[in-house]
Amino acid sequence: VQNNKNQTLSVQLKDRSYNIHIACKYPQLEIIDLINKVFIITDHNVENLYLKKFIGEAKNVLGFYSIKAGEQSKSLTQAEDIFSAMIKAGADRKTVVIALGGGVVGDLAGFVAATFMRGVPFYQCPTTLLAMVDSSVGGKVAVNHKLGKNIIGNFYQPKGVYISTDTLKTLPKREFAAGLAEVMKYGIIKDAAFFTWLEENKDKLLNLDPETLSHTINLSAKTKADIVSQDEYEKNGLRALLNLGHTFAHAEETLSGYGKILHGEAVAAGMIAACHVSNILGKMNLEECDRITKLTEYFDLPTKLTQLTTLDHFFKCMEGDKKNQNGKIHYIIPESIGDCNPPMVIDRKIIEEALL
Amino acid sequence: VQNNKNQTLSVQLKDRSYNIHIACKYPQLEIIDLINKVFIITDHNVENLYLKKFIGEAKNVLGFYSIKAGEQSKSLTQAEDIFSAMIKAGADRKTVVIALGGGVVGDLAGFVAATFMRGVPFYQCPTTLLAMVDSSVGGKVAVNHKLGKNIIGNFYQPKGVYISTDTLKTLPKREFAAGLAEVMKYGIIKDAAFFTWLEENKDKLLNLDPETLSHTINLSAKTKADIVSQDEYEKNGLRALLNLGHTFAHAEETLSGYGKILHGEAVAAGMIAACHVSNILGKMNLEECDRITKLTEYFDLPTKLTQLTTLDHFFKCMEGDKKNQNGKIHYIIPESIGDCNPPMVIDRKIIEEALL
Repeated sequence: VQNNKNQTLSVQLKDRSYNIHIACKYPQLEIIDLINKVFIITDHNVENLYLKKFIGEAKNVLGFYSIKAGEQSKSLTQAEDIFSAMIKAGADRKTVVIALGGGVVGDLAGFVAATFMRGVPFYQCPTTLLAMVDSSVGGKVAVNHKLGKNIIGNFYQPKGVYISTDTLKTLPKREFAAGLAEVMKYGIIKDAAFFTWLEENKDKLLNLDPETLSHTINLSAKTKADIVSQDEYEKNGLRALLNLGHTFAHAEETLSGYGKILHGEAVAAGMIAACHVSNILGKMNLEECDRITKLTEYFDLPTKLTQLTTLDHFFKCMEGDKKNQNGKIHYIIPESIGDCNPPMVIDRKIIEEALL
Repeated sequence: VQNNKNQTLSVQLKDRSYNIHIACKYPQLEIIDLINKVFIITDHNVENLYLKKFIGEAKNVLGFYSIKAGEQSKSLTQAEDIFSAMIKAGADRKTVVIALGGGVVGDLAGFVAATFMRGVPFYQCPTTLLAMVDSSVGGKVAVNHKLGKNIIGNFYQPKGVYISTDTLKTLPKREFAAGLAEVMKYGIIKDAAFFTWLEENKDKLLNLDPETLSHTINLSAKTKADIVSQDEYEKNGLRALLNLGHTFAHAEETLSGYGKILHGEAVAAGMIAACHVSNILGKMNLEECDRITKLTEYFDLPTKLTQLTTLDHFFKCMEGDKKNQNGKIHYIIPESIGDCNPPMVIDRKIIEEALL
């Protein structure tokens, strides 16, 4: 597959439509054409690596706020502190919030933008693979509550997303792999040809070949954007497919303690669990299960959930997932690679059989 | 003016349209036709007066949360505690949040509904005049930040508003009068005939005559709904007219300390200040200024701002208002009763002359 390195994708959401720009160069504020003042939200790691380069000669920066990297920063307390910094810097309703960082920065900055003075314009500059292919696309913004992840948030679309594959060079290998779990997910739920392409290009991908990266991000973001365009507010079940593996991952993450296991790692193990369930239900054949497991292993991602020692806890955790309705767990189960079922209720015994 | 006592108003906002129902009977959950479980947010006063009657025989109540009455409850900390209560009660994405109370309950419950699991359905059952004619209409939901009122929030429309004028019988006189300030505002900014009608019916209004109340609420809510329909997100300046008197009121409230002066009281004094500015600018004649002052006095509302001893503080406070842009104070100044100018920048000397 041949691709230009610079690509633009359109996310069609009526008056909330926007573009995703994919380029190789490191991210720069000047490429976002803005008249108004901007307030940048980032984390300490990204600040050290990119903030100076990002700002460059720009004269429209009102201020920035740098959080401690990691999920624990996604809290109302942290958001409140950012509001203070913004007010003190003189931010008003026209101030543009820019998220420069990974998923945590994007989710938190998006929530801040959605709620500051009832919503200010917002741009995403994702610097991790996970953020590029998943969290920066789709308008889900949130912070965590002590009783659950992403419980507090909004649907709030950015005005634009600026992706620079250059930033992946400084991304820790483990974080890169975590992003690949979500990339694989798009192949499994919707695009068998893309999954095969990933199998064929796995080495180039791990070697950060620019064209391979660009194509991977483009196809992943496009798949997500297509689904989001058809189900922005998670009303018709289509968007739920993006949660493949996530119900298991949610429990895995909660029981490991946030930060011990990366989200993408939990998703990888969760997807394989969903494939096993599918196989038991007579859907996915063993050969496809194996292909998924093999690629997962190749990417150095976990293939097994680790928090199953107390099964009751695990199910209790899955029951607390916000995707559930009327207290029943709704599972996303693939039919085969490239084809996925809408959320379904499944007998606990079948799930246990697949997990153990 | 003859009116049916039961009226329905439609707020036209495309796929976010909803109805406002005005009735005399005390509010009842059963008149809201809901399949899903509900979670009620109220305050201690309203809980004691109405909660039992409101719930009646309804079987779909998951739980309720009662806050301490007053502006200080409109905080992120309070919202976080309500999220905990909702999660513990088993609330999910389909749970309906109902605000039963005044403006504080409505703003806070609306923010909770807007952000719980990225938004759940929300109904307003306002029990104060201010909430009926102002805060329950228009979709502004918010909590306060220590550095400013309503700094954190969203535009989030309810699925419906249920008004029962019966609840005004138990509303303290001072709170009722505060609501009348916003009622007068609608006459001044958009409807001279309504203002004259208010002058003619002021006694019936103060005596809580049901038909007079119903007409007053209907016309006020309709005026607000019309403006909101044309400018939902405060983009074209029309919605800004609703802020007549509010720039002054904002400083007055902040400097008095929240809770010392009621919002409507500050707005009353602020509107008269705006009329004086208008007069100095050669717009509103003295006769109209007097009519507004007289009706304000008749309603036992303040006609003068009380926090002008340190003028610099007062202007500093007005500068912090979130309606400003680029650090410049934007004033809403009436042209005459029933006609209002878009936001304008005015020389500080003219404002001082009007205030002192």
